[in-house]
Amino acid sequence: MRSPIAAPASRVNLKRLADAVGVHPSTVSRALDPAKRHLVAEDVAERIVQAARELGYRPNPLAASLRTRRSRLVGVLVPDITNPVFSPIISGIAAVLGAEGYSTIVADAGQEPERRLTLIDDLIARQVDGLVMATVSRDDPSLEHCLAQGVPVVLVNRADDHDRASAVVSDDMTGMQLAVAHLAGLGHRAIGHLAGPALLSTGHLRRLGFEVAMVANRLPVLPGAIVEARAYDRDEGERATLALIKAVPQITAIAASNDLLALGAYSALRSLGKECPQHVSIVGHNDMPLVDMVHPPLTTVRIGPRDMGCEAAKLLLERMGGATGAVRRVALQPELIVRASTAPPRKSA
Amino acid sequence: MRSPIAAPASRVNLKRLADAVGVHPSTVSRALDPAKRHLVAEDVAERIVQAARELGYRPNPLAASLRTRRSRLVGVLVPDITNPVFSPIISGIAAVLGAEGYSTIVADAGQEPERRLTLIDDLIARQVDGLVMATVSRDDPSLEHCLAQGVPVVLVNRADDHDRASAVVSDDMTGMQLAVAHLAGLGHRAIGHLAGPALLSTGHLRRLGFEVAMVANRLPVLPGAIVEARAYDRDEGERATLALIKAVPQITAIAASNDLLALGAYSALRSLGKECPQHVSIVGHNDMPLVDMVHPPLTTVRIGPRDMGCEAAKLLLERMGGATGAVRRVALQPELIVRASTAPPRKSA
Repeated sequence: MRSPIAAPASRVNLKRLADAVGVHPSTVSRALDPAKRHLVAEDVAERIVQAARELGYRPNPLAASLRTRRSRLVGVLVPDITNPVFSPIISGIAAVLGAEGYSTIVADAGQEPERRLTLIDDLIARQVDGLVMATVSRDDPSLEHCLAQGVPVVLVNRADDHDRASAVVSDDMTGMQLAVAHLAGLGHRAIGHLAGPALLSTGHLRRLGFEVAMVANRLPVLPGAIVEARAYDRDEGERATLALIKAVPQITAIAASNDLLALGAYSALRSLGKECPQHVSIVGHNDMPLVDMVHPPLTTVRIGPRDMGCEAAKLLLERMGGATGAVRRVALQPELIVRASTAPPRKSA
Repeated sequence: MRSPIAAPASRVNLKRLADAVGVHPSTVSRALDPAKRHLVAEDVAERIVQAARELGYRPNPLAASLRTRRSRLVGVLVPDITNPVFSPIISGIAAVLGAEGYSTIVADAGQEPERRLTLIDDLIARQVDGLVMATVSRDDPSLEHCLAQGVPVVLVNRADDHDRASAVVSDDMTGMQLAVAHLAGLGHRAIGHLAGPALLSTGHLRRLGFEVAMVANRLPVLPGAIVEARAYDRDEGERATLALIKAVPQITAIAASNDLLALGAYSALRSLGKECPQHVSIVGHNDMPLVDMVHPPLTTVRIGPRDMGCEAAKLLLERMGGATGAVRRVALQPELIVRASTAPPRKSA
């Protein structure tokens, strides 16, 4: 049981307030809604506002939700809340939506498709006004599920192959092209790629970006020089790097599909007694927090996750406001951040 | 507008379902509530369940919330969602509460007290069933505000001086004693402390732990050897370290109140042309993600934030379930993780 301090035994509701002023509850409702206040005579509206203040009346958002079918809640699904790249995305979403009176429910969707559908159903049952999904794969049944129920959805960081929903992403192909051009400019010719999962747009497009950039720089993609990680984590980065170096021992540089994979590559090199960048240069992707402090500080592609979150929230606000229009894909321009994990190849290599 | 796929034009509500079976809506409500089903004749209950399934009826949780005054929503307030130490706390809370059917609203409370009160009022207006606060200072008006409104509250990571609400924390004094004992064991005598903000329990208790441990190890706290950071961030860590070394140039080791302060100390040493641990050993606190990858890998005190989140959620479930009882403070035991930022002092120092 909870109640305002001033009136512990009798919470002031719309009905009570209407009785106190001597008007119909619907009149109170109109007077307190800025969008409808003009429908009420001015002196009546003022008496109502005055009484609301004196009696400590606060509108009940749950009752309002039932009436309007709007909850002013937005669900945000992330695949792994402990992955530092998602914190600034969430923060950007919450900042933009919060300024418009929306609260965000953040849900850690985990890796199991079944659990994801359950989570989404829970959010829909709560009548969330919209969803931001950072979880989708390129052909994701959970997206179909949301769309079938008419919930406004915006994707962030990862997009869907069929453009079924608007998405805010980093320009993943361009980002990888920046990484490869940097390595090629330093004089590397034998460059490998730690690819992200091909089912995710980031993994797929960054790999494409790698292949396109190698061609553009007239460099051959050596057999075995692209190894796909099964997940974006350090262990997979280590495993994939060991496989890569085993297949192509002459490699002098690696462009990784994300920073955690790059940090896994650091561990792999260390276990082989090799140094970065003396033996192998490494470029990450994302510029997640603290990669400027690792050893050596990681050269990486900065994707601006907070901006992505903000942009995704703005697109969702448009949709929730009733905008229909075409599905849009907003691709933010990434930026190469050169630190100390890249250097020219050794002459002897 | 949204609606189930099967019946786009006419969402099946309680009333419609009751009409279809030919009973009163309150009978439907009882039949579908496991706790009240025994109040309905068995054959009627079965007909209702059967019809609900056929018609695709899903209970409306908003309507249920209005009726029961329970939202099955829990608010989690963090001071800064981009600080990596909070991700695993949130993840632990969400996992335990999610298993019990609660959704968590994560709110980034920011640093302004006024904004915090507004956020809390918003959450209360949504009739959250409880709050987990990772934000409180030792004497926090926002806590008083929640308690006055009767919302169950549990604190996590930071506690309040007056034990007004149950809290799950790391044993902060013991943690700092582990750090100092480690440095003393290596032979350091001139040890400094980068204190966290004294208004926060972590800052206050870790500083006390430092002072107690210095006495226990028969080491003097040199004048100027404790510098308080105004915030837990890298910039403040750098500033405080420069002040510390200026005041006590003979310092050979620093115990920092958290990892971000310790990383700021790395930057300060670098700007002075000093090396860690050759010139100054550094111990952090928290063991947040990636401090094993910085250079040198950080010796730190591991506080188990995910466990803290889980324990806080369990305490909150007890409170929300109606448990009254005394306010509890659960202190989890921290653990020293020795990496490469600590070494014996140089003989010449």
